[in-house]
Amino acid sequence: MANKKLSFTSDYMEGAHPLILKRLAEMNMVKSSGYGTDDFSESARSKVREACNAPDADVFFLVGGTQANATMIDSILRPYQGVIAAESGHVSVHEAGAIEYGGHKVLTLPHKDGKISAESVKNCIKGYLSDENHDHMVMPGMVYISQPTEYGTIYSLDELKQLSHICHEYKIPLYLDGARLAYALACPENDVTLPDIAALCNAFYIGGTKCGALFGEAVVIPKHDFVPHLFTMIKQHGALIAKGFINGIQFETLFTDDLYLNIGKNAIETADRIKKALVDKGYTLTLHSPTNQIFITLDKEQAEKLSKDVELGFIENLDENHVVMRIATSWATKNEDVDDLIAAL
Amino acid sequence: MANKKLSFTSDYMEGAHPLILKRLAEMNMVKSSGYGTDDFSESARSKVREACNAPDADVFFLVGGTQANATMIDSILRPYQGVIAAESGHVSVHEAGAIEYGGHKVLTLPHKDGKISAESVKNCIKGYLSDENHDHMVMPGMVYISQPTEYGTIYSLDELKQLSHICHEYKIPLYLDGARLAYALACPENDVTLPDIAALCNAFYIGGTKCGALFGEAVVIPKHDFVPHLFTMIKQHGALIAKGFINGIQFETLFTDDLYLNIGKNAIETADRIKKALVDKGYTLTLHSPTNQIFITLDKEQAEKLSKDVELGFIENLDENHVVMRIATSWATKNEDVDDLIAAL
Amino acid sequence: MANKKLSFTSDYMEGAHPLILKRLAEMNMVKSSGYGTDDFSESARSKVREACNAPDADVFFLVGGTQANATMIDSILRPYQGVIAAESGHVSVHEAGAIEYGGHKVLTLPHKDGKISAESVKNCIKGYLSDENHDHMVMPGMVYISQPTEYGTIYSLDELKQLSHICHEYKIPLYLDGARLAYALACPENDVTLPDIAALCNAFYIGGTKCGALFGEAVVIPKHDFVPHLFTMIKQHGALIAKGFINGIQFETLFTDDLYLNIGKNAIETADRIKKALVDKGYTLTLHSPTNQIFITLDKEQAEKLSKDVELGFIENLDENHVVMRIATSWATKNEDVDDLIAAL
Amino acid sequence: MANKKLSFTSDYMEGAHPLILKRLAEMNMVKSSGYGTDDFSESARSKVREACNAPDADVFFLVGGTQANATMIDSILRPYQGVIAAESGHVSVHEAGAIEYGGHKVLTLPHKDGKISAESVKNCIKGYLSDENHDHMVMPGMVYISQPTEYGTIYSLDELKQLSHICHEYKIPLYLDGARLAYALACPENDVTLPDIAALCNAFYIGGTKCGALFGEAVVIPKHDFVPHLFTMIKQHGALIAKGFINGIQFETLFTDDLYLNIGKNAIETADRIKKALVDKGYTLTLHSPTNQIFITLDKEQAEKLSKDVELGFIENLDENHVVMRIATSWATKNEDVDDLIAAL
Repeated sequence: MANKKLSFTSDYMEGAHPLILKRLAEMNMVKSSGYGTDDFSESARSKVREACNAPDADVFFLVGGTQANATMIDSILRPYQGVIAAESGHVSVHEAGAIEYGGHKVLTLPHKDGKISAESVKNCIKGYLSDENHDHMVMPGMVYISQPTEYGTIYSLDELKQLSHICHEYKIPLYLDGARLAYALACPENDVTLPDIAALCNAFYIGGTKCGALFGEAVVIPKHDFVPHLFTMIKQHGALIAKGFINGIQFETLFTDDLYLNIGKNAIETADRIKKALVDKGYTLTLHSPTNQIFITLDKEQAEKLSKDVELGFIENLDENHVVMRIATSWATKNEDVDDLIAAL
Repeated sequence: MANKKLSFTSDYMEGAHPLILKRLAEMNMVKSSGYGTDDFSESARSKVREACNAPDADVFFLVGGTQANATMIDSILRPYQGVIAAESGHVSVHEAGAIEYGGHKVLTLPHKDGKISAESVKNCIKGYLSDENHDHMVMPGMVYISQPTEYGTIYSLDELKQLSHICHEYKIPLYLDGARLAYALACPENDVTLPDIAALCNAFYIGGTKCGALFGEAVVIPKHDFVPHLFTMIKQHGALIAKGFINGIQFETLFTDDLYLNIGKNAIETADRIKKALVDKGYTLTLHSPTNQIFITLDKEQAEKLSKDVELGFIENLDENHVVMRIATSWATKNEDVDDLIAAL
Repeated sequence: MANKKLSFTSDYMEGAHPLILKRLAEMNMVKSSGYGTDDFSESARSKVREACNAPDADVFFLVGGTQANATMIDSILRPYQGVIAAESGHVSVHEAGAIEYGGHKVLTLPHKDGKISAESVKNCIKGYLSDENHDHMVMPGMVYISQPTEYGTIYSLDELKQLSHICHEYKIPLYLDGARLAYALACPENDVTLPDIAALCNAFYIGGTKCGALFGEAVVIPKHDFVPHLFTMIKQHGALIAKGFINGIQFETLFTDDLYLNIGKNAIETADRIKKALVDKGYTLTLHSPTNQIFITLDKEQAEKLSKDVELGFIENLDENHVVMRIATSWATKNEDVDDLIAAL
Repeated sequence: MANKKLSFTSDYMEGAHPLILKRLAEMNMVKSSGYGTDDFSESARSKVREACNAPDADVFFLVGGTQANATMIDSILRPYQGVIAAESGHVSVHEAGAIEYGGHKVLTLPHKDGKISAESVKNCIKGYLSDENHDHMVMPGMVYISQPTEYGTIYSLDELKQLSHICHEYKIPLYLDGARLAYALACPENDVTLPDIAALCNAFYIGGTKCGALFGEAVVIPKHDFVPHLFTMIKQHGALIAKGFINGIQFETLFTDDLYLNIGKNAIETADRIKKALVDKGYTLTLHSPTNQIFITLDKEQAEKLSKDVELGFIENLDENHVVMRIATSWATKNEDVDDLIAAL
């Protein structure tokens, strides 16, 4: 019925965490009002606010990451503004031009392992401001980062504070894409909490799709009404689901008994086992990635051999003989699959 | 936890049909590939093609109705074109400008109980063509209808053939919004089948959200590659979900053992009971609506009285003293709730 | 070389007023800086501010009317908003969907001879606000009117005050399209001055193209920085010309010695002569139009006969046997052509 | 009245070539039909077709360069496509996001002195095609180049043929921005003729604004109806002027007696004199630029000293101590101003 080979392609290959499925089944015939006006959603919003220590936050539940990014970027920017992002950022590369479809340029910065520095952001803004022709150019109007990044790396609290400081200095909103946020929160190297993010960012989303939900992302705007009429803009983007309570039930469950804070642990532990085995067997890790994504640089021969037994994620062709592939673990990764993978290396 | 009063507000107040929930639970830990490339989705596509007697159809699973409409209209139209729709059409009124957000004008026609006639479409196109300034005007590039309509009415096979004929004559695609299609298919007055729709329309969607799924709409394009690169445009619209297999599992279930063809029966039967009671008790039906939506014209006093016991859907203020309200039934409506409603009338 | 028949098709058939051509020739080799930063433009802006009694106004010179409308509407509205306009408004019908291209719905109101009333605007806004589903709908975010209207009629000062009052009450900007403003200002029936417009509207444009310039429209925003970063948005719309000084020279001339206030007189006088002759000869004036556009309802026979000698502007097919045609005069209309036209009636 | 200092800021500081002004004055009171349907425009189109040896070409007259680029790119691309351009390209940097406003990403390539190579274009397209995730990415749908480039350099016929060959191989249109085309055509190093461009590009524009006209760019599409309904899309972009005959008269004049082919000669000759003087006086030319734009790298001290006597164009801050400035000549540059400039160096 589904793929048979051992697969570590991505972290969105299974359905939902059992507690979510259970709750969906239990509440299945409860009647709820539409579009997120229901009690489950209200409860979920309260729990998210509490987890973020952001009592006045506006919280909206959207369906997917590209949708959340495009909706928020379009809704926050004015037409003459663009969004600063890493060259490797999801909005720059893998959203099929969704940001441009909404009318905005992505102003790309070089990245280091998926991260951009406060200094490069500052230089970008200062370069814009000191260019005598800047009225003919797209104004930097927002900074987009992801935590963890596309390469599984994480911003430290200090780095996040520096970015936030620059954004504040130039009155430019800071937006954080948390598609895989649970895997950062569960990572021992991480020192950035949800309240930190809420305190330092103007808007962010807490990823559900890749972190235990069937689908869904919780957009959080710490300062109430920072984006007026966002509900209508979400609808306009086709991002408002009729049965908003499905999202409500999922996030209520994720934010009960710290499930979201713990759901990533299995992914980190299994990823650590795999990384150790890779190093032991002489594979080349492309970079140091402390969360649930592992990047390995393979030559053609290795890649072909490995692909007989395991499905991995394609990242990029480095050159004619080398390719970067990704191994992703998740809340659902089974230790016996990890054993099989290690045996296949 | 949720709303306590008797509620007939809409047809999207409960979760999913039990068979869907069951299947989601059974398949929860099966690993699938992303973005609709999985086996469940492939199977669902086959079953949809078969049900539509459209073996070459392209089938895509999207999340919601506004999203499906905006994505398809934007993807089919060229920039200089607009979409013809009833003044009461969902795309005209209740999508927060999603079509215009995509750059296209909605060219509205007067409607009769939510329906537009082939003749009015023809006159619109001919009026455009015979206007000496038409190169300065938006060209009609598509016709949008819904089955059932916003008012629960249905196009007869003859009416649909006439619309299709006009569209064909002027080489303009015909698009059908089937958000509530199950309720048309289950309606005894209806003589339009899925194969009819596939034969007469260039694109349409089979509604899941309001017809038994947690969410999801199956876009069907009977002629393969009628919309090249639609996958990328779906992604660009934020309408591509990572866990496409959730959609796959849902539509596979809906199209197994004719579930979709039968799922609307309960809604029709309960709506018929309610309509009979309304007429018996002297209420004014706003129009003849043979599917799962009932529209009643109430004076202020009636509306206030009724609202104490029952939640209904608001449609419009007719004048200072009258309001049109909607009673919606669904696959999930319970006979005991219908009893209570009738008692409260 | 050009059309030989007697032509009253439009008011943009000749080049520029002789004083403008003369000034362009005299200043042809003066070096100026680009994009409207030159001294001619600065002087023109001062003169426009003075004529409008709006000392703090932002003034920008654009090229054409559709461009000015689209740029201003896009720049003022937020994505969730649309613009209220008459069904007959230029933005509704004859701009090829330019407003929708920018992402905004045109919310049309019925018109009376091209005009909309304060009451209908109020009802539209109140209808929106009182609709329980208005968060799913496009919010009225601006009111668009033209002076004179598409049908050559004019708003009285009292009517304009009422519109402005409603807009102010609901905090919605009022925008006035003055493509043919000179013909309103020169019309004896008119009681609305440039300072009135500046006092009552949030933005408007003073038409050059149809009022004596080679091209060009002066956008006036009475309150400084009401639209921040408009320069960049003008550029983004492709509406910023490199040789802005050409616009500057033209508008400086139009606003020297009251040329703009007087340039329409010839059009009004010749139009009055023609209207009198039409009535005398039994033609049907479609409506009372006091400015430079005359609308006549012709049956097919009349239309064919007249078209042998004179070119008129096509407006619309009323029915199979009747057509509405337009006779337009301008600053450039010659009395001998009027004599010939009257003879041909 | 205008700037008094010696100015070499740009090539659009004066009005129009005297022959154009003369013709505009002579034809000023001839009545013409609107929107480019007039006889002058028809004649100009014929002459442009002849000069390009492209008898079936569609020719449209637009107002400015950003407008022409945005209109053509939007009109040719499908929503899922982007345009390949040099990082330094006008569409990438100095059009205030006009391309993104139309919904399209600019896919930038590194440049060499403003030029991109056929090989880098090929690698970009091949990289896209060989990326397993390319359905989630913006598809290269067009190649944008300018002749001369932003840095005054020119593509050789051989280079243009190679680019055209790659585009043809991958069925991607090649578009050429000829804002300053007259200065390439008049350049002794140039071996690319108008017929070459028409033979090798799918669309291009012949610049008027910077090459002797008051304003205006002639868009040429060698293959008739390559872009269906372009007229309406031009209108939709606000790029259609009512008095199209002003454009017609200007381009008719430019394409009579080879004026366009010769109008750039003065610019080349004066630029050559200046370049020689710069080298003689020890200035650093930033790059070899054979047309009418000269780029010099100045340290702060030089820049300040020079700016006392001469206005130059700002290009970019190289580092804290160095700036790149531009000297531009044109058809209107006077030898006495060149003498003064050389004296001031």
